[in-house]
This record gives sequence, C-alpha cells and structure tokens, in this order.
Amino acid sequence: MESIKVGIINVTGYIGIDLARLLHQHPGVSLVSVTGRSAAGEKLGKVFPHMAGVDLDITAELGNVDVAFSALPHAASAEAVARTLEQDIKVIDISADFRLNDIPTYEEWYKVTHPAPELLGEAIYGLPEINRSEIAKARLIANPGCYPTSAILALAPALSEGLIDPDIIVDSKSGLSGAGRALTMTTHFAETNESTSAYALGGHRHMPEIRQELQKLSEDQEVSITFVPHLVPMTRGMLSSCYAGLRKEISEEEVRALYRDFYRDEPFVQVLDNPPQTKHTLGSNLCLIYPAIHPHTRRLIVISCIDNLVKGGAGQAVQNMNLMLGLPETMGLEQKAIYP
Amino acid sequence: MESIKVGIINVTGYIGIDLARLLHQHPGVSLVSVTGRSAAGEKLGKVFPHMAGVDLDITAELGNVDVAFSALPHAASAEAVARTLEQDIKVIDISADFRLNDIPTYEEWYKVTHPAPELLGEAIYGLPEINRSEIAKARLIANPGCYPTSAILALAPALSEGLIDPDIIVDSKSGLSGAGRALTMTTHFAETNESTSAYALGGHRHMPEIRQELQKLSEDQEVSITFVPHLVPMTRGMLSSCYAGLRKEISEEEVRALYRDFYRDEPFVQVLDNPPQTKHTLGSNLCLIYPAIHPHTRRLIVISCIDNLVKGGAGQAVQNMNLMLGLPETMGLEQKAIYP
Amino acid sequence: MESIKVGIINVTGYIGIDLARLLHQHPGVSLVSVTGRSAAGEKLGKVFPHMAGVDLDITAELGNVDVAFSALPHAASAEAVARTLEQDIKVIDISADFRLNDIPTYEEWYKVTHPAPELLGEAIYGLPEINRSEIAKARLIANPGCYPTSAILALAPALSEGLIDPDIIVDSKSGLSGAGRALTMTTHFAETNESTSAYALGGHRHMPEIRQELQKLSEDQEVSITFVPHLVPMTRGMLSSCYAGLRKEISEEEVRALYRDFYRDEPFVQVLDNPPQTKHTLGSNLCLIYPAIHPHTRRLIVISCIDNLVKGGAGQAVQNMNLMLGLPETMGLEQKAIYP
Amino acid sequence: MESIKVGIINVTGYIGIDLARLLHQHPGVSLVSVTGRSAAGEKLGKVFPHMAGVDLDITAELGNVDVAFSALPHAASAEAVARTLEQDIKVIDISADFRLNDIPTYEEWYKVTHPAPELLGEAIYGLPEINRSEIAKARLIANPGCYPTSAILALAPALSEGLIDPDIIVDSKSGLSGAGRALTMTTHFAETNESTSAYALGGHRHMPEIRQELQKLSEDQEVSITFVPHLVPMTRGMLSSCYAGLRKEISEEEVRALYRDFYRDEPFVQVLDNPPQTKHTLGSNLCLIYPAIHPHTRRLIVISCIDNLVKGGAGQAVQNMNLMLGLPETMGLEQKAIYP
Repeated sequence: MESIKVGIINVTGYIGIDLARLLHQHPGVSLVSVTGRSAAGEKLGKVFPHMAGVDLDITAELGNVDVAFSALPHAASAEAVARTLEQDIKVIDISADFRLNDIPTYEEWYKVTHPAPELLGEAIYGLPEINRSEIAKARLIANPGCYPTSAILALAPALSEGLIDPDIIVDSKSGLSGAGRALTMTTHFAETNESTSAYALGGHRHMPEIRQELQKLSEDQEVSITFVPHLVPMTRGMLSSCYAGLRKEISEEEVRALYRDFYRDEPFVQVLDNPPQTKHTLGSNLCLIYPAIHPHTRRLIVISCIDNLVKGGAGQAVQNMNLMLGLPETMGLEQKAIYP
Repeated sequence: MESIKVGIINVTGYIGIDLARLLHQHPGVSLVSVTGRSAAGEKLGKVFPHMAGVDLDITAELGNVDVAFSALPHAASAEAVARTLEQDIKVIDISADFRLNDIPTYEEWYKVTHPAPELLGEAIYGLPEINRSEIAKARLIANPGCYPTSAILALAPALSEGLIDPDIIVDSKSGLSGAGRALTMTTHFAETNESTSAYALGGHRHMPEIRQELQKLSEDQEVSITFVPHLVPMTRGMLSSCYAGLRKEISEEEVRALYRDFYRDEPFVQVLDNPPQTKHTLGSNLCLIYPAIHPHTRRLIVISCIDNLVKGGAGQAVQNMNLMLGLPETMGLEQKAIYP
Repeated sequence: MESIKVGIINVTGYIGIDLARLLHQHPGVSLVSVTGRSAAGEKLGKVFPHMAGVDLDITAELGNVDVAFSALPHAASAEAVARTLEQDIKVIDISADFRLNDIPTYEEWYKVTHPAPELLGEAIYGLPEINRSEIAKARLIANPGCYPTSAILALAPALSEGLIDPDIIVDSKSGLSGAGRALTMTTHFAETNESTSAYALGGHRHMPEIRQELQKLSEDQEVSITFVPHLVPMTRGMLSSCYAGLRKEISEEEVRALYRDFYRDEPFVQVLDNPPQTKHTLGSNLCLIYPAIHPHTRRLIVISCIDNLVKGGAGQAVQNMNLMLGLPETMGLEQKAIYP
Repeated sequence: MESIKVGIINVTGYIGIDLARLLHQHPGVSLVSVTGRSAAGEKLGKVFPHMAGVDLDITAELGNVDVAFSALPHAASAEAVARTLEQDIKVIDISADFRLNDIPTYEEWYKVTHPAPELLGEAIYGLPEINRSEIAKARLIANPGCYPTSAILALAPALSEGLIDPDIIVDSKSGLSGAGRALTMTTHFAETNESTSAYALGGHRHMPEIRQELQKLSEDQEVSITFVPHLVPMTRGMLSSCYAGLRKEISEEEVRALYRDFYRDEPFVQVLDNPPQTKHTLGSNLCLIYPAIHPHTRRLIVISCIDNLVKGGAGQAVQNMNLMLGLPETMGLEQKAIYP
C-alpha cells in the first residue's frame, strides 16, 4: 500500500518545524516535501540539528503531495492555500487567514485585504473536540490559534451547559516560542528572561477568534471576552486562567463532573483534580483542564494548560489531518510530555 | 552623632537576608544584630557568600537595637514582636500577624490562635502610599504581603475615585522566591523551571488582606476580590493583572492622568505609558503601574509590577522604618533595578 | 505473538519516570509493572500528570516480567538486582553498582560494602557504541552514568586511534535534573536559577568510571582524567568540553573525518560541522559531537551534547534492552528532540 | 564644592546602561551627559524604564564633562576616544581598542586598521588588582574584557608565584547579556533558553588579551592559553574554570593561603573555602575565587565568578574612574549582590 504523502509550506518557523518532527514520526503518512524561502536548497537536518539524519531537502516549491500544511504568515498563506487547493490537495492552514468567518472583522484585525474570500465559506475551524465531524469532511481546515485553543477548551463545557454569564475574562500566560522565530527585542534573551509582562492590552488578534467560537456555543446570550495575553520566561507552554460568573447554584464537584462528562471520550483532554502545570504538556498534544469555584465570590475559574506549539499548533494540525484522512485520531500523537 | 541601631529577627529567609542587604547599605542606620536559629554562631558572610566581608555574627537572640524587623513565620513572629515591644524597641513585622484587623478572620486563614491580640489595635498597615502619616507615628508596623502590595497600589486610585465596580479580579504572577527558602517540590528546580501554574484556587491568605485594605478605600460599596496567584519560572518579580468594570464614562488618557495625579509625589510609584515588565524592578523598591481600558468590553485593566522581595517585602519595610524614624523616605532605597 | 513484559524498579525518580515514558511508547515491549516506595498504591498517571491516562498502578513489589530496569540508589540497587536475576529476569541497572570493575575502587568512592560482588564479573558496561556485541549477550547491564556517556563518546575515537595524550581534562556542564528529584538547597529554584557553579572539585564518582572505560581504549598509555562537573540553570541537557594534547600532526578536517568514520553506522551519534547546543537533544537519544583543534595551542577540543536523562540514562537503557532482546536497536527511540 | 562631571558615550548597550545605573548612584560624581545614536532626543528613563525618574536626555554629542566612558563598538570607540582626549577629558574605554599592546595582533583579531595607534602607548590596562598605581596616573584606560577579568584574577596569584606551568586551559561560562543588546539568533530566547553551547572554538578575541596580560605576570616562561567560551541560559554571570599543571609540591590549604595573601587588601576579590556560584555576584563588583587541587591528577583548578557586566564591565570602569580621580576605590560600588 502506498503511503499518503504530505508536505509543509514554510517549514522554518517554530510551528513548521514542529510539524516536521511530528509528521516525520507519523506511521500513517510520509513527509516528502518541505519548503522555505531563505533556507531553500539546504538539507533540513543541516538547518535544524535536532533533525540530523533526516534526508529531506528544503525546496522553494511544494512537491507532489496529498495533504499540505501551510505555515506561512497570514495573507501570504491564503494565497498559497488557494493555489494548493486548485491542485486537489487538501490543506490545513496554520495561519489566521480562514479562522474568522467575517471578512470585515478579519480585515480590521489583520490590516490586509483578504486574498481568498471565496474560500472562507468552506473552511472549517479545526478544533476537533468541537467540530470533529465537519473536520472529517473538509478539504480546508483553519487550524486554531494557540490562545483560542486553550481558552475555548477551558470554557466550552461551561458555556454549552449554560453554566456561566457570557462576560468572560481570559488571562493567558505564554512561553516565548509563541512569539515566533523572527528576532525582536521582546524575544531577546536578556530582555525577557527573568521577566513577566502583559502585552496587547489595546486588543489582540486572537480575541475575535475566541469570541466567535465561544459565541457559537452560547445560544441565548452575546459573549463578551476581555482577553489579556502575558509572556512568561519559558520556551513552550501556555496557561489560560478564565473567569466567569456562575448562573446556577452548583458545587465544585458537580462542575468537575460536568467537565469530565463533556470530555469523556476525548483522547487529548484531561480534566484534573488539582491545578495543572504547563510542564506536564511539554512536547505533547495534551490539554489539561482544572475547573474550580472561587470560595468567596462564587466565580467559576477554569485553568487550562497546553504546549502552545503542539495542541496550540502542530499537534492539533496533525490531529485534524488524521480526521480528514480517516486515520485514527491519535496516530502519531501518542508521545507523552517530556518531564521533567 | 550616634547612629540608629537596627536588627533583624530571623535573617535567614529571603526577605530577612534582603533586609540585611538594604540595611547594611543604609546611610542612616547601623545593622548591628541579626538572629537565626539553625545558623546561630556563624558569620553572616559565610552563610551568604554575597555578604562576604560583612562582619556580623548570626546570634540566637537579638542584641541592643532601636528598631527591629521580625522576619519570623506567622504566630512565632507575633510572640517575638510582643517581647520586643516590651523592651521599647519599635518593630516592623514582616509576617502576616498584624495585617488583618479582625481576629476571627486571622484565625480562620492562619489556623492558629493569635498570640498577641492586644497589639492588633495599634498595628499600622505599612503601605506608605496609603498610610504614610499613621506609619510615621507607629511603634508597630504590619508590613504588607507581596501580592497585596501589588494589588492595592494597582487599584487604589480607581477605587478611591469611585471609578470602578468593586467586584474585582486579581490575577497575579509571582517569581519563586516568593515561596520562600524552605525546600518543597513546588520550588524544586526541575519541577518548576519551564513551567507556569496556578495555585491556591480554594483561597489564598492574601485575599482577605487585599479585600480589607481595598474596602477602606471604597466608602459606599462592598469590595469583592477574586484572587488567583500563579507561579512563573523566575526568581524575583511579581506582576498583577487587575480587572474591574468601569462605573463612569472615561477615556484611557483620563484614567492614566488620574493615576498619575494620585501618585504624583510618590518616589516609588511610576505610572507608565506602556505595559511594564517585572525585570525593570529587579532589586529596586519601584512599583510600575499601567492602567488601560479594554477596547471591546470597556473593562479597566491595571497591570502592576514589583520586586516581590523589595517593594513586596524588605524594601517596603525599610521605607516604613525611614518614616518611623523621621529619615528621608527614600534613604537607602535609591538603588535602581539591575537591568538587564 | 505475546509481547515481552518489562518492569521498572523505583519509577519515581527522574530516570525511572523517563523510562516509563519511553517503554510505554515502545512498540516491542509492554510496560506491565512499576514499583515505588512512597507512591505505592497510587496510579502512575495521578502521581505524574504527564502520564495521565496510562493505566498502571505503582506497586511495592515488581510483577512478572522478562526484563527489569532498576532505578534504585546505589547499594539498594545491587541487592534488588541480585534478587531479580535469581528469578531469571534480565536486568539493566541504572545505578552505579556494577559500573566499576574493581571492588576497592567502588567502595572507596561509594562508601559502602558492595552488596553483590559475585555479579560484577558478568556485568557489561552498557555503552552500545563501544560494547555492542557483549551487551547483546549479557543478562546484567551496568547502564553508564550521564557524565561518562558524554565524555567517553567524545573521546573514544581520539583515544582508540592513538591521536591524543592520555592526560585529559573533562569540563562538563549539566542541567539540574541530573541532581535528581530529592529536595536539596542546590536544586531549590531560587538558589540555582540564573546561576552557574562548579562542584565536586575534590573528586566526583563519575571520574573513576570515565577513567576505567577510557583506559580500555588506550592500550599503550595510562589515562589520567581531570574531571570537573558544573551545574547550569536548565532542566535537561549536558555538554562536556574535553581537552587533550595531540600526539600527531593532523588537521581539523582529518580529525572530523576520523570521528565521522568511527561513528559512521551509529544511529544515535552525529558528528557535526558546527558546535552543538544541548537544546537539539532534548528528549531524544541523540549524542551530538564536535571535534576541533584550538588554533594556537594545537590542543584537541571535543564538545559533546546529550540529554542527560535519555542518552545519559533512560534512552541508553532502552537501547541496551533492544540489543539484549534482539530487537532493532533504535526501536522506541526514534523520537526527535523537542525544538525549540 | 563642585562635583566632578562624567558622561557616557553610547549609553544604550548593556554595559553603557549599567554604567548609567552605577554613576547615577555614585556620591562622588555627577552623570551629566549620555549619548546614543538611535535614541538621541529621548529621555533616558523613557527608553529604560528601570531609570524612570532620572532626568537625563540622550543626546547625539557628549556634553561638557571631566571624565568620559566610551561604550562604542571597537574602531568607532578609538575614534571617539581620540577626539575626547583632545578636549582634555580623561577617558575610560570599554571597547577592546586599547587593550592589546601590539597593533598587528589587534588588526589580526579585530579585522580593522587601528584608528588611533598613537594612543596605544599611554593606554593602561584597567585591572586595578594588577595595575592600580598606573591606573591612578593614566588619562586613558583600556577597560578589560569580561572573560579576561575572570581569567586573569583567577590565575594571577598562581602565575606570579611561579606555581604553575604556563600551558593553561580556560573554560568559561557566560550569561547571555555578554552577547550584547543587538538581536541575533544566538540570543533569541527560544533558541538559547534551556540550552548550553560552546562557541568560538576557532579562536575568541579575548584569548590574546588573556595571554598578553598573563604573560606579563610570568617572567621566565611563555604563556599558552587554550580558551573556550560557553553560553549558559542566564542573563548575567560568568564562571571561569582554569586548569594548569602544578610545578611545585604544595597542598590545597597552602594554595588557598597564597591566594588569600595575594588578594588580602582587595576590596572586590574574595577567596572562598567552597566553590562559588555566579548568583552571589549579581549586580555587584565582586569577584569570588576558589582555588583547588584535583586529587588524582594534582592539577590546579581555579574557579572564578563575576557579574560580567559589573566587575566584567561597568563596575570595573567605575573602579578605574575612582582611582584616576583619587576617590576611594570602592565609592559607588558598595552595593551587595541581589540574592536570591
């Protein structure tokens, strides 16, 4: 049986190269093509020593594949996606280009004209725990952002069950790989090590994405999201602390049972009895969730932890691919976190 | 002129030894006595190599001093404070023993019978930006906790001016020195490095302290505090993100002006135009504050940064001492942060 | 076909739990038994949240297995190894008990009477790149220490080819997981973060192990090792810088070619053209080696990088198991490093 | 009495801004002028929030000062130094331009024609522990590099006393602030955090500087230095491990006594009885030294720790300034390290 061929457009960013790690190890597909602009012509294992021994050339153009992942920046990605779909290649788009359903919202937040608005209608938001069946039938997946993944998984059970007021605060803490591989003062080691900061207080692009997806889970009320992202001095890992008022009398045990029930069959979501640490997700596709009720204010607090590059990026993309190809959803993603 | 003699009870914890650093350098007082149980009989500079060259013995009992700082754990501290006050020595208590005005609240949160309830009445909560004149007249100061310092300074202007609803969320991120010098799995390097976690979701002892002090600033409404502390992988530094609904139509510029006005003459509070980093406070007594209005939900967000061991501990204690002794408030505290 | 059953004695240390990660994912064996004292009776996935979902109880005694890994401390390990071998179970001993061939040397460095000296004769030093064929036939493997693995792999080609004087300096830098899971002041986050230190300058237990194994590769001269280990503020990773005088006229290119040739068929050793980083080995069984000649002193310098818990511990143990069982040597170890 | 006016040319690098911190707090001089290209026209406290409240403009040209510090890159610095000396301003040059006595050596390593060779003759190498009296009389100081400071202080006693063979290995570990404030992949947080690496194995510019200065202390033999610098994931701090063969029968206690004697009156050098950590020097001008004899090879090992930006840069420059101006050598430098 011939193996399914997959490729990565723009392998040289952090999600791109983490996709290469996961796809290289995936038993159901063959990673046969990786592209990159500046590194074109070089061996993957030369540019990335942890891939030493992997025989793949970085090329300027994508080779012959069945499924492509685009890890290009927004706008550039939509253009590449459109060209790729025309060749009957299924696409999982890591960029934000097909996440927002509403073009004016996209153009307000991303400050560009959308390069392929005609494709928006068929793009499926690739959060398998919410949209599994649509993903399985799609030819274009909008892979969620890292902050939205952590926030939506934390809040979906509570919102779906009508448990909370939809005026929600999401306070997220991210490791610095989330800021990408491009050099900036914010990601300069001496500026950011031993330091915590808040940013994007005037509005972050992941806020409308969180709001849109949570709105779909809240039939009767308009969702409002106050979202503040923070940078903490670690490479990988994301913890979101979500706050919302409870609409019902309910005990912490009942909330936890409700969450467990909601995620009962999910291979990549674990509802815990103790607050989680991001460390326990490092390198894995796991999302750890801990719901609690603040004893004095009776507010619901939900803590979620993911590896921002795996469940918040490359791992989720592979999970989507598995669904699209009819492979077991966990294939190639069984790897446990690297602890300690 | 003879110099004022000061001493530290229990110098071997992180706030205790940071007090030694600050008092040793202080031009207006002489650090003449430091106590410690396990290290009694040793040279300070032997136990703490960064103090090499400082000629001070760690003793079991406090020597002859004018002012004492108690850095003992709670309950043990109150006992030592009572004994010390009897000798006509002014005391700045770093522990929590005299922070809560209400004995049942203290006993609920600290699970001990208060050893010196008769002293509670005269103890002054040592946040100079709020209680400067009372501090100057006090003989017993309850030095604030680190989380309360960061939260109260962030919220005092908004609450005092009646700007916000008093249902407030405080999401704090602390470096690990805040967890002290005692060995625990939580502070074991391999368990906590490259990891962020939330803790004390069932209630943290600093919550009633924050609520009590903010309530004093809010005449007409009952203050409610949802407080969640987090640990981030850095040694020093604390950032609190505070969220509250606005009660008035006001622009971000007006809020910032109001904050600047409130802290106009404060030597250790700076209101910034950009979100701050904890790094810019390392080793200094500075509190950096950034108020903002979330563009979509119109919620007030205030970010504050301190060094948890300085403005959140030893530095604030020295600031209180300066006030009690009639010395210039900034004496011995002019040191800028170590950057980068 | 029934799968091979394996077990871990003392799973709760860092190498023990990393073995659990690797063996759980191993396609050729089944991890059926894990022991632990304090945690006996608990679920593995409860004690270690990154293993959430793995259905294994921690027990007091080892179950029925074909191969056992002992991750007990020295002396305790030899006792357990002896008992286990009696049950016809092959053993890979992670402790130092069977690494030193000479009992007086063992007892000098480990300060205990050897509990099972009769087994020393058959124990094979489990460095596959050097002892592959003996490992395949052994029933007892002494799994090498982390520092020795990094030093021996760095120096074996040069010593075997008679390239260098055998008066060698090994300056090693280790992440803090190497210091184990037991709580100590050295591994307390606030004491060790943002700090580098040297230790064991009076002699480290891995020195005689390095010397013994390198001596076997140096026929005509007595090997002398000056070994200084250092702690650097990272969780995982080990870099050894090895210095030795050259005995021959040889160019850097020729040295590199000699190294490449020596390791030509090794799946887990890569000789690089540029100095490596420990980061590129995180979580993987890879050893990266970079030999160079100092331009002014003509001294050979060899840099090697490993993950101290994988190639320096659990991964190497699995590699040894594969050889002992006749499985492909790389089985279960193909996982690439987590980068960044 | 009018205060001495000092200025900093190019304040925006890490040593430049650390000079500003130290000079601002210095009781014997007034920092009146700081220059910077890109930031010219801005307030110092705006560009560097930890200096908030300091009323200084960054200007394009140096104002009227008595002493200037040049923190420009090499070559550019020599040009500025020449212009500044012409105005009868004493200069402390932080760059490497006047450190090497031999012009061909300078031009070989720095790949530029020396812009001011006529000044080399009068420049004094500013290591006060070695050249105190010459520094006091100089009008141009070549402030030492960070690696040379740590290596020379570690080796000066042994070499001066003829204790060791002059074939020396220096294995240094540096925090990343030593790599400067310019953005590079090497200093990108996600690339360098949780990672240790060796670099410049083909030769580092500080090697000839170390060799030159150690040669001056070794009358009868030619000094040879094998120097390998490493980067470890911390912001500040440098530890050098120096290795050399002993020429004499001597005990470790005698070596330590010899070192203590050599540095008996030095305010900024402490010879310790236990291996030091870089952490105990953070933000201070202290150099901690620990000499030992390896028990099996009888090789001398000397460990030294400094803060690379203070004793390895800005603090040493201030120490030199104090000597040049006849001020107490420790003035403005009494600040203890920030611990933990």
